Amino acid sequence: MTNEELFGAAVVQSWKQITGRFDKAMAELSDEQLQKQVAPGKNRLFYLLGHLTAVNDRLFPLLGVGERMYAGLDEAFITNPDGKVASPVSAAELRKAWSAVHAKLTAVLEGFTAEEWLQKHTAVSDEDFAKDPSRNRLAVVLSRTNHLSFHSGQAVLAK
Amino acid sequence: MTNEELFGAAVVQSWKQITGRFDKAMAELSDEQLQKQVAPGKNRLFYLLGHLTAVNDRLFPLLGVGERMYAGLDEAFITNPDGKVASPVSAAELRKAWSAVHAKLTAVLEGFTAEEWLQKHTAVSDEDFAKDPSRNRLAVVLSRTNHLSFHSGQAVLAK
Repeated sequence: MTNEELFGAAVVQSWKQITGRFDKAMAELSDEQLQKQVAPGKNRLFYLLGHLTAVNDRLFPLLGVGERMYAGLDEAFITNPDGKVASPVSAAELRKAWSAVHAKLTAVLEGFTAEEWLQKHTAVSDEDFAKDPSRNRLAVVLSRTNHLSFHSGQAVLAK
Repeated sequence: MTNEELFGAAVVQSWKQITGRFDKAMAELSDEQLQKQVAPGKNRLFYLLGHLTAVNDRLFPLLGVGERMYAGLDEAFITNPDGKVASPVSAAELRKAWSAVHAKLTAVLEGFTAEEWLQKHTAVSDEDFAKDPSRNRLAVVLSRTNHLSFHSGQAVLAK
């Protein structure tokens, strides 16, 4: 592997580790347990699962690698806090959406060359990217991996 | 910047963002507020601050860039859960330790060349590293950044 390839591989490995742990934690819970709050008055696990699915589903257009799979989740899981808008999907459907989004995303990330990692994300203009090449796909994926870790830390408190 | 440099810069940027947010969150709290638990029966913020300081202080020898600064924190903040062993330091001293460890670590990471990022960490043997070059400093720093995000997610619940 070249140095560039080693960098890309480390980012993918980190992404897979964090998504894999959250995936395992959710798989071990019943649908009923998903209704537990991570702390009194805080988000339910069900909300976190929906939130992370919806936020990461947005990565497809943000990385410029395709269309979203589940745009219908945003109102319940991004735009509004937990409990404001009923989920448009059942727990079984939400688990399926989580799995589908992350399986597809991981495959995309595994396929990125170093050049592709360093291409701009779609929320930045060509002009701004020329001034600041750090606004690339890599930065977005590192940020989303940290976002997933952030909510994973909350999810374990519900145990 | 070369591609390799862009990769290294993104990793440092991510580290600085996550440490910076936690730093700001802690700075906004009084010493009394640090005694709050993130959820009933869970770790106090004070413990998280000590835990993250001690775990990240271990990065100096693990990355092979120097000696630890505060080895005395481990028993209270790594080896034992919250409440088992009294802190050997005051809140003011712990805040100072957090700042000193992270200022020094960040300076080290900012100075890494691509080659240096991809060197082995010290917990892997030369032989094992030859078989698996992904066991490098980069992987360790990505992992610790996620670890910090994990506990940051818990810390915000105490608000």
